Amino acid sequence: MQKLQQTIDAIRPLDTAIHQAALQRLADQARPQGSLGVLEPVSARLAAIAATLDVRLRNKVIVTCAGDHGVVAEGVSLFPQEVTAQMVYNFVNGGASVSVLAAHAGATVRVADLGVNFDFEPDLPIFHKKVGHGTANFAQRPAMSREEAIRSVVAGIEIVDQLTAEGRVDLLGTGDMGIGNTTASSAVIAAFSGIEVGKLTGRGTGISDAMLAHKVGVIEQALALHMPDPDDPLDVLAKVGGFEIGGLAGLVLGAAAHGIPVVCDGLIATAGALIACHLAPLAKDYLFAGHNSVEVGHRYMLERLGTAPLLDLQFRLGEGTGAAMAMHLLDAATRVLADIKTFAEVGIDNAQKQ
Amino acid sequence: MQKLQQTIDAIRPLDTAIHQAALQRLADQARPQGSLGVLEPVSARLAAIAATLDVRLRNKVIVTCAGDHGVVAEGVSLFPQEVTAQMVYNFVNGGASVSVLAAHAGATVRVADLGVNFDFEPDLPIFHKKVGHGTANFAQRPAMSREEAIRSVVAGIEIVDQLTAEGRVDLLGTGDMGIGNTTASSAVIAAFSGIEVGKLTGRGTGISDAMLAHKVGVIEQALALHMPDPDDPLDVLAKVGGFEIGGLAGLVLGAAAHGIPVVCDGLIATAGALIACHLAPLAKDYLFAGHNSVEVGHRYMLERLGTAPLLDLQFRLGEGTGAAMAMHLLDAATRVLADIKTFAEVGIDNAQKQ
Repeated sequence: MQKLQQTIDAIRPLDTAIHQAALQRLADQARPQGSLGVLEPVSARLAAIAATLDVRLRNKVIVTCAGDHGVVAEGVSLFPQEVTAQMVYNFVNGGASVSVLAAHAGATVRVADLGVNFDFEPDLPIFHKKVGHGTANFAQRPAMSREEAIRSVVAGIEIVDQLTAEGRVDLLGTGDMGIGNTTASSAVIAAFSGIEVGKLTGRGTGISDAMLAHKVGVIEQALALHMPDPDDPLDVLAKVGGFEIGGLAGLVLGAAAHGIPVVCDGLIATAGALIACHLAPLAKDYLFAGHNSVEVGHRYMLERLGTAPLLDLQFRLGEGTGAAMAMHLLDAATRVLADIKTFAEVGIDNAQKQ
Repeated sequence: MQKLQQTIDAIRPLDTAIHQAALQRLADQARPQGSLGVLEPVSARLAAIAATLDVRLRNKVIVTCAGDHGVVAEGVSLFPQEVTAQMVYNFVNGGASVSVLAAHAGATVRVADLGVNFDFEPDLPIFHKKVGHGTANFAQRPAMSREEAIRSVVAGIEIVDQLTAEGRVDLLGTGDMGIGNTTASSAVIAAFSGIEVGKLTGRGTGISDAMLAHKVGVIEQALALHMPDPDDPLDVLAKVGGFEIGGLAGLVLGAAAHGIPVVCDGLIATAGALIACHLAPLAKDYLFAGHNSVEVGHRYMLERLGTAPLLDLQFRLGEGTGAAMAMHLLDAATRVLADIKTFAEVGIDNAQKQ
């Protein structure tokens, strides 16, 4: 708990002078004001985070947090639990979707085991941060203890500590793997928001109408049984969350504490980000929402965070794929601010200012 | 006219066998079916265009077509006409928005003068394809003759011929520069669709409510005066279009005839693409819409083309900036298809298929 509180306390507000200078430069550039849409506020925020108008996002890392979910015993997913561990190997071997899209974004993928129900070889090149062999089935008992919830968040923070100890990190992406984790994530946003579960719950890997109705029922019963406290993010995480969701929250807190911009993926990564921003509202200044997931609960999470997604590619995959796609936009935003010339620099009439 | 017809006739339908093989590979990949959203059909179409599942978009070129518009005499833009020529120099010098975003996309920007009201030095490194010193003021007379309309389209085709003669082009982007050209483009989509001009007309560089109402009135009067034939794209182009819009149409036709995928930018580039696809419906198979412009008329153009935009970044700039941003997505789509492993390749259970 001490590490968690220290990290929260270490998060600093953004540099408002640089933010203002960035907005001024954008307004002075040789193009109609506001004409580069969402890239403009994004570029100003990246400048404020890095405290320079010439931001270079050279070293990009996507951390994909994996964990298993006891609730799969209720029959909420199309895939068997074994797929979580199999996909960890697929990430390590570079053949997964996030491997391909991260490579294209110039980012490295690092995998973290927060709670997969499988014992990986100790020398497998992943972050070994297992809090448990999958969560408990939250249809019957809390997913984890409060102490385990804290350990999972701290594990995420420690991963950022280790990454920054290894070398400079300019941009962090967060992603997930875990059969059953859309059920946990939908439960998390339902617990925070009080919105009807049926409105927040999607088809995950592509379940049928009947399975979807069952999934909604499982979440409703779990919320009625455990009554997670919406004002206590660790209680929400412990009762209906997941180990990897805790890790994903820790990544956001760790990144913010280190002054690193962090771009989250879809439903599960955003559930983690939501817990992080409930624990430390200042973390929001460092957070970018990579994309808009097909999963309906995601929209409610983003609304709650007050963040608009950068992309809408109709992804519903996770792993960090949406975060990877958004990295190109964040890079582009840094170049917009630094490299587009102002009217004065190119000597063009600016009649609109007269 | 012979060159135009030859080019239209040279456009071939896509390779359906490769398209089918691509869709099968996407369905077999180790992830939920359809989970990579819009990248999937895009990747299959790029494969069908290139006739291979391993598409490499190595050489990317954005052609920014510039032209002036007589209708600026009616007071429809915030910027003076001189800015068109000044921006051409800004493109050539690499300090403009498209220069910066194209560099980030790994693309080269080539500028084409289709009808700027300025005499550039003959050795300025641009395509010198001037059809006239700006169009006529279409509030009073047709923007250009039918013969000039054909010349502007053929000029675009010739640019693609020249680019491919210089070296391999794997992906072409189209962009525009021309003070007053949102007025012409809104008139083009109004002429084709018959939709109320007020619904199709936006603020361009950022004009006031009063100027917007005036701009709508100018377009309405021009349409009433010239009555462009919606079934004759060259008539539409001649009466209310622009030289760079003709060039942009020619770029799409030329790319399609050479079997090159082409990604168009916003309102003006899409006006050109719309004319191209009216002249040659098969060209649509080679066309991607880079982004959704803030300009309201753009949406109606895309609907008419039956194409969804890849990005919605709230851009309203032109130059090819939206096309440049979309190139990263097209690149990513090629990697998705070729590099993500199938369930069989990685030996993972695929319960959902059973």
